[in-house]
Amino acid sequence: MTFRYAQRMARVQPSAIRELLALGADPSIISFGGGYPDATLFPVDKLDAVFHEVIRAPGGAALQYAPSNGLPRLREQIASLMRADGTDCTADDVLVLQGSQQGLDFAARMLIDPDDVIITEDPTFLGALIAFDPSQPRYATVPVDADGMQTDQLEAVLRANPRARMIYTVPDFQNPTGVTLSLERRKALIALANAHDVIVLEDTPYRHIRFTGQSLPTLKSLDTEGRVIHLGSFSKVLVPALRIGWAVASPDLLERMGLLKVAADTQTSTLNMAAASLFLDRYDLDDHIATLRSAYRHKKETMLDAIRQHFPQDIHVTDPEGGLFTWATFPEGFDATTFMRDVALPQARVAYVPGATFFPVTPRPNYARINFSAPSEANIRSGIAALGEALKSHFLS
Amino acid sequence: MTFRYAQRMARVQPSAIRELLALGADPSIISFGGGYPDATLFPVDKLDAVFHEVIRAPGGAALQYAPSNGLPRLREQIASLMRADGTDCTADDVLVLQGSQQGLDFAARMLIDPDDVIITEDPTFLGALIAFDPSQPRYATVPVDADGMQTDQLEAVLRANPRARMIYTVPDFQNPTGVTLSLERRKALIALANAHDVIVLEDTPYRHIRFTGQSLPTLKSLDTEGRVIHLGSFSKVLVPALRIGWAVASPDLLERMGLLKVAADTQTSTLNMAAASLFLDRYDLDDHIATLRSAYRHKKETMLDAIRQHFPQDIHVTDPEGGLFTWATFPEGFDATTFMRDVALPQARVAYVPGATFFPVTPRPNYARINFSAPSEANIRSGIAALGEALKSHFLS
Repeated sequence: MTFRYAQRMARVQPSAIRELLALGADPSIISFGGGYPDATLFPVDKLDAVFHEVIRAPGGAALQYAPSNGLPRLREQIASLMRADGTDCTADDVLVLQGSQQGLDFAARMLIDPDDVIITEDPTFLGALIAFDPSQPRYATVPVDADGMQTDQLEAVLRANPRARMIYTVPDFQNPTGVTLSLERRKALIALANAHDVIVLEDTPYRHIRFTGQSLPTLKSLDTEGRVIHLGSFSKVLVPALRIGWAVASPDLLERMGLLKVAADTQTSTLNMAAASLFLDRYDLDDHIATLRSAYRHKKETMLDAIRQHFPQDIHVTDPEGGLFTWATFPEGFDATTFMRDVALPQARVAYVPGATFFPVTPRPNYARINFSAPSEANIRSGIAALGEALKSHFLS
Repeated sequence: MTFRYAQRMARVQPSAIRELLALGADPSIISFGGGYPDATLFPVDKLDAVFHEVIRAPGGAALQYAPSNGLPRLREQIASLMRADGTDCTADDVLVLQGSQQGLDFAARMLIDPDDVIITEDPTFLGALIAFDPSQPRYATVPVDADGMQTDQLEAVLRANPRARMIYTVPDFQNPTGVTLSLERRKALIALANAHDVIVLEDTPYRHIRFTGQSLPTLKSLDTEGRVIHLGSFSKVLVPALRIGWAVASPDLLERMGLLKVAADTQTSTLNMAAASLFLDRYDLDDHIATLRSAYRHKKETMLDAIRQHFPQDIHVTDPEGGLFTWATFPEGFDATTFMRDVALPQARVAYVPGATFFPVTPRPNYARINFSAPSEANIRSGIAALGEALKSHFLS
C-alpha cells in the first residue's frame, strides 16, 4: 500500500550518511564517527547502588507514573547544578526531557511554522537539523571560526531573514567543529537576539567536559529578556542510557514545552529520574566530571599528536578546549564522503563523519568530524595512523 | 516577554481538568481518577535482579547509546509476544517507543495536516487527543455502546469526512468506558478502513488485563492491507516507570515512525530496554499478568458491589471484561465536573475524572470515569460509600 502522508513528512527522510555510518558499526572498523562517551568510564558501581535503592523505594514510587515535567527533587537538583555553573534559576524553571534532543524537537514545534527560519552555525549539529526538519523550517547560516559563530555576520543574516524565529547554537566545544563561542560574541549574540526579537536555543551537551581554559558564562546567564532556552543533559557527564536532559527557560516558554511533553510521551522514565536524583544526592558529580575531563583531555592530545605525526601537512584540525570532537579541514577539491566510502572504510578500516552532512544549506565536501572520546588510546593511535597513510597515498597519487 | 508561537500552539493548551485532578493528589482524598496500576503488585525483586545484571553488562552496553528503533533482542521478544497473541509479525515490524503515548504523537505527525480529520470513539482517551492536537486535526466521532464503537455509524462518518485520515480506537476495555469492540465490529471496522483508505490506529494498553471472556483478535491481526498501526505497552503489565511501548506496522509506516523517533528523542532508555528484555528472558510475563488479572478482577467486583450498594439506582455503570475503568452514566442534567468540584472533593473526599473531557467534539456533562486498579480494596469500599452518600444527598435534595 502507498499511503498519503502529512506534508511535513517530505522533510522526514533517511539520510544517506546514516547508511554510510552503519558500515562503521562493523567491529573490525575503528570508529571515530559517533559522539559516544567512553564506556570504560561509566560509574557502574554507583549506578548499580542507586538503582537497587530506588527500585525498592517505599510504595513503588520509582516504578509508578510521575509528574510529566519531572520529579520535583530532580528539578531542584538540576537548578542547583545550573546555579553552581552561574545560571540563576529555580526548580520551577526546569523541565526534565527525554534527552536534550527532545528539547530541540519541542523548541521547533513551539516556534516554527512552515518556512519560518532557524539560524544555525555553519556547520551545525546534524541531530538538531533532524529534530527541526519535521517543523518545516528554512535554514540560514552563520559561519564559525576559532571563536565560534561569527556574530559580526549574524546581524546581516537576521536582517535578510525577517522570518527568523530562533538562533540555534552549541556555544561550548561545538558539534561538529569543537570551537567555543567567545564571551564577547556571547554578549553580541544576546544583543542581536533582543534587537531582532528571536529566541536563542542554547545546546550544551559538552559544556562540562572542558580540558583547558576558563568556563564562559552560559547564554542563559547573559539573557536579559527571558528569550534563551538552555538545554542540558546527563548523557555525556553520567551515562547516555538514562536519556535525561532538561530545559531551563522563562515561564512562558517552559509552560508550552511542558504541554508538548505531556503530548509527546507523557514523561521521562520515573526510574531513571529517581536514580539520577539519588546519584546526585549521594555522590559528587563534579568528581566524576573531573575524571572525564582528564581522560578525554588525554585522548584529545593522543589524537592530535597522532594527526600531527601521520596526516599530510595541509590538513588542518581544530584543537578544542573540551568536548568530544576535532574537525578536519582538507584541501579544496577533497570529498570526505567518497574518500570514506572508497578508501577509509574498505582500506584503512577507519570511520569518521564526513562533514558535508553538517552544513544545513550548502554542503561542503572537504571536512570531517573526528571523535576522540569513544575509541581507546590504542585505537586512536592505530586508526589515525592508518587514516593518515591512506590520506598520504591519496594526496601523493 | 510575549513571544510569537507557531500556529499549532493554539491547540496546545492546559486543560481545565488537569487543575481539578491536581486537587485529587491531596493524600487525604481517595482517588478513582488516574489510570495507575496497583503499585503493590509491581515485581520489585525481579526488576531489582534484572537491573543489577544489565547495569553490569560487559562493555557498559546497557548504559551506552543504542539503536533508535530499539534493542534488537527486545524487538524480537515483542514480536514473539505479539505472535503468541495471534498477531503475525517479526522483529522488523516492531519499533520501540517512549510509551505508547509516543506512538499517538508519531501517528498524527505522520498522517495529519491541519484540518485533516481523525475519527475517534465518543468518548475517547483524553491523552490521545492531547497527543493529536499539535498536528491540528479536526475530530469526527462515532458513539460507543456495550460492544464498542458503533461501526454501523462509522460509514456515514467516513462519507461525511472526506479528509478523514485515521480511525483511532482502543478496542479492548476502552478508555474511558471499559467496553470491548466485538469481533463482528472489528471486521467491519477493517472493511470500512480499506474501503475509505484510512489508517487504523489500534491502542491496546489494557488488552492483557482481561477478567472474563475470550480474548478477541487484534485489529492488526485482521488487517488485510497493512493499514493498521498497533500500539502496545509494558506500562500496565510490568511497570509504567520503564516508559516502554511499541508500534507494530507495515514497513512503509514503521520506517517513517522510526525517522520521527530519531528526530523526537533519539531513542528510548537503553537501560530500561535491556532490563525489560532480560525480564522477558528470565521470567514468565504471563504468570505476572495472571496475578494482575486476578487482583484487578477482584477490585472491579469490589467496586461494582459497592456501587450497587451505595449509588442511587438511576446511575448506570459499565461492567468491563477487563482493564482499569468503569464508566458511570448519571441522569441528564447532572454535571459531574461541578459535582466533583463542589461536593465530591470537598465533602466526600473522593476524586474521579469528570466525563466531559473525554468527548472530542461535544462534551457531555453527565458521565464520569472511575478507576479501580490503583486504590486499595478498603479505599474502594469507603470511597464509593462516601461518593454514594453524596450522590444520594444530591439527588434527594
